[in-house]
Amino acid sequence: MALADIRALSRNEDGIAVAAGVLKQRFGDAFQTGEAIRGQHAHTTTYIRPQLPDGVLFATSTDEVSEAVKICAEYAVPVIPFGTGTSLEGHVNAPAGGISIDTSRMNAILQVNPEDLDCIVEPGVTREQLNDHLRDMGLFFPVDPGANASLGGMAATRASGTNAVRYGTMKDNVITLEAVMADGTVIQTGARARKSSAGYDLTRLMVGSEGTLGLITKITLRLHGIPEKIGAGICGFESVEGAVEASIAAIQCGLPVARIELVDELNMRAINAYSNLNHGESPTLFLEFHGTEASVAEQLETFAAIAGEFGGRNFEAAVHTEDRNRLWQARHDAYWAALQLRPGAKGISTDSCVPISRLAECIAQTRADIESEGLLGPVIGHVGDGNFHVLLLIDTDDPQEIAKAEKIVERLNERTIAMGGTCTGEHGIGQGKRRFMTLELGESVGIMQLIKHALDPKNIMNPGKILPPGRE
Amino acid sequence: MALADIRALSRNEDGIAVAAGVLKQRFGDAFQTGEAIRGQHAHTTTYIRPQLPDGVLFATSTDEVSEAVKICAEYAVPVIPFGTGTSLEGHVNAPAGGISIDTSRMNAILQVNPEDLDCIVEPGVTREQLNDHLRDMGLFFPVDPGANASLGGMAATRASGTNAVRYGTMKDNVITLEAVMADGTVIQTGARARKSSAGYDLTRLMVGSEGTLGLITKITLRLHGIPEKIGAGICGFESVEGAVEASIAAIQCGLPVARIELVDELNMRAINAYSNLNHGESPTLFLEFHGTEASVAEQLETFAAIAGEFGGRNFEAAVHTEDRNRLWQARHDAYWAALQLRPGAKGISTDSCVPISRLAECIAQTRADIESEGLLGPVIGHVGDGNFHVLLLIDTDDPQEIAKAEKIVERLNERTIAMGGTCTGEHGIGQGKRRFMTLELGESVGIMQLIKHALDPKNIMNPGKILPPGRE
Repeated sequence: MALADIRALSRNEDGIAVAAGVLKQRFGDAFQTGEAIRGQHAHTTTYIRPQLPDGVLFATSTDEVSEAVKICAEYAVPVIPFGTGTSLEGHVNAPAGGISIDTSRMNAILQVNPEDLDCIVEPGVTREQLNDHLRDMGLFFPVDPGANASLGGMAATRASGTNAVRYGTMKDNVITLEAVMADGTVIQTGARARKSSAGYDLTRLMVGSEGTLGLITKITLRLHGIPEKIGAGICGFESVEGAVEASIAAIQCGLPVARIELVDELNMRAINAYSNLNHGESPTLFLEFHGTEASVAEQLETFAAIAGEFGGRNFEAAVHTEDRNRLWQARHDAYWAALQLRPGAKGISTDSCVPISRLAECIAQTRADIESEGLLGPVIGHVGDGNFHVLLLIDTDDPQEIAKAEKIVERLNERTIAMGGTCTGEHGIGQGKRRFMTLELGESVGIMQLIKHALDPKNIMNPGKILPPGRE
Repeated sequence: MALADIRALSRNEDGIAVAAGVLKQRFGDAFQTGEAIRGQHAHTTTYIRPQLPDGVLFATSTDEVSEAVKICAEYAVPVIPFGTGTSLEGHVNAPAGGISIDTSRMNAILQVNPEDLDCIVEPGVTREQLNDHLRDMGLFFPVDPGANASLGGMAATRASGTNAVRYGTMKDNVITLEAVMADGTVIQTGARARKSSAGYDLTRLMVGSEGTLGLITKITLRLHGIPEKIGAGICGFESVEGAVEASIAAIQCGLPVARIELVDELNMRAINAYSNLNHGESPTLFLEFHGTEASVAEQLETFAAIAGEFGGRNFEAAVHTEDRNRLWQARHDAYWAALQLRPGAKGISTDSCVPISRLAECIAQTRADIESEGLLGPVIGHVGDGNFHVLLLIDTDDPQEIAKAEKIVERLNERTIAMGGTCTGEHGIGQGKRRFMTLELGESVGIMQLIKHALDPKNIMNPGKILPPGRE
């Protein structure tokens, strides 16, 4: 829907040709220019059109990334970081061509410090890889965006997911990071200490900068002890309002809920059909609680009582692993099930996040809007954060449907911003949401522009992302 | 100790004179130039020499701040924000003169949104004022640096304090903020939503920027429900190592401790003498637990068991308010008690923060160093964060003692940084720690400098702070 927004950055043909030659000479087979590989590196999971880079460097170290960026800087050639390609907003596209730096071979877990509850990883390590590695130590890394994304990519997009309500987002779980900046300089943004007041928070500046200021080459992450006990719950509600109000009440009374996920009736119907289940087809909360055995039991009991006050019914709880997994399977299937509501359609995921007091209202207005356009858009929500995704199911070969979807998304983002919310809770801006930046952030966009110009004067770091057209 | 570091920024005499005249004409009595008022606004709580501003504006609104900054920008005159003057590193000094903007009259609590667990305040609101206001709503703001600081100042220095281990620092508790930038532009750094991935994290860039990038004029803060039950504990240990190891074990096993404070044997002796108490004079942990009645009881029990494994003795617990207050009184008195170890001496507080696995070692080496210099330096620590303060008690009229203290601090900061730590966990850089920036942050200082130049090209926003001499 944002195709019209993508500024036709001009290609620096000569620079690209020379830089590609230098990179080939320096890196040999680790630098690839075949179309298949370039195509994979412009893969997007939405219908944003792929824009291929001119070459892909499979880097293996910070030094190699630095060297490559220096070469690109010398010839003013764009550098596009690539992790696993699971981003949703065209982050890996190369609108002005350039070199994709693939970090998947930088996948070493360099340190785990159990006493400090931290670890240092290379950017290509995926979250599942890290958690597999940590399991035997009784530790885990909590941020879970669904996809088995690379931790570098998750940091770059300020990702979060289902348990941000308890453990925070990447912003809260990156302690410090190493990055290669636009001239090839390598920086370490801060100390490994748990907190610091030493100067500007470059860690948080880089987290969420989507490769537009520098390329993340090492990340120090905060870890957590695997809870002694995990409890799961699932509860149907008469209305989305009831489910949201129960969530608000639970959080207000200090219930340390680890996950609290909303699935609307349409998505529940999809799940039942997809997995042959017989859940009630009403707005449903999926919950998870972490703690000691006694505390998890108490949390489940407290939530059951709260749910009852807001029209919750058939609250089902589970503490044994298999039972928990069975309960949550429905939530995990939500995306694939939703796609099957309209076989052949593509899903476009929105990413509104509003103050939780406005969440039910925002969802209701959005669902009414989708219905009046005659489209399907099942909803799931990270309700504890006020973040929800509509999966608009559209035939991307039908320009009229695309136009309708664009209108729905535009109105949704305007509604969200008017309610004090953001057009992106966790997916990032990429190419797809650039045109909402000014509406949401006003004069702050000018400050972002000054920072971008100062740190990347040649605009080679992932150009055409984040900053709105004409403000890059 | 950092006097030698403070670059003699040149005074823009003509600009200051003209700007002062314009400000007087515009703001009348709200603009003051008397020496007593200027002196109050250069008050520092350390022995960094006061450097008076040329005038003090008592601003009452964002518009007034913006107007004043525009006047100062026009004549290239420094702007120094002032909250309550409780900073420890010379943040409010005016090394090149200029205008202090006092925000104490901007002390309105503009919104409290109980459902969203957030509020919007002006920067002059103090944390005690906010908590008094919130109490009847069953809410509280957790960040507690000890002093009754202004929330604007706390945001500007990325403050934290005793319960950061559970609730985080200002970085984690500021959702978004409004700021007046160096040309007078007013920005809102982000939405009120609980999380966002929309562009560069300007909120976190401003938090901790110490007024050097802009002046914070409104803050949206995250609130928490007052816990149903609070439990307190106090436990002596045979050694600092034992106390630290017990803390590590408690955090590793997921005990959600709300405060865990270390007081060393010297400071315990001081407390007993100051308040006529008879605590054991050994390294002592002060603890606080938040939760339901059952969960607090369980937490106290779990900690008692852990403490026993690491040489803890005479663990005393309390859940009734008066008993809790009695237990914690000793900790609250620690600073004043410590000063009485040497009546007439001034205290210089260090602010090292290391990965917790290195904490005991760092404290031990530092205490040995202080002892070998023949000085007194009682220690308190926010042990859950790896942050500890040595209060060096010195006669500031004795140049030899000052030299000794400077050496101790220098070695402490070098030791801290070598251990992966930071020279400031929560006090900020100000003037006092500028010379450690490069050692701690290396090439990142160059990035900070680029940002400072881009956002404040005339270097009028609190000049002479954060960036090291010669790098401003």
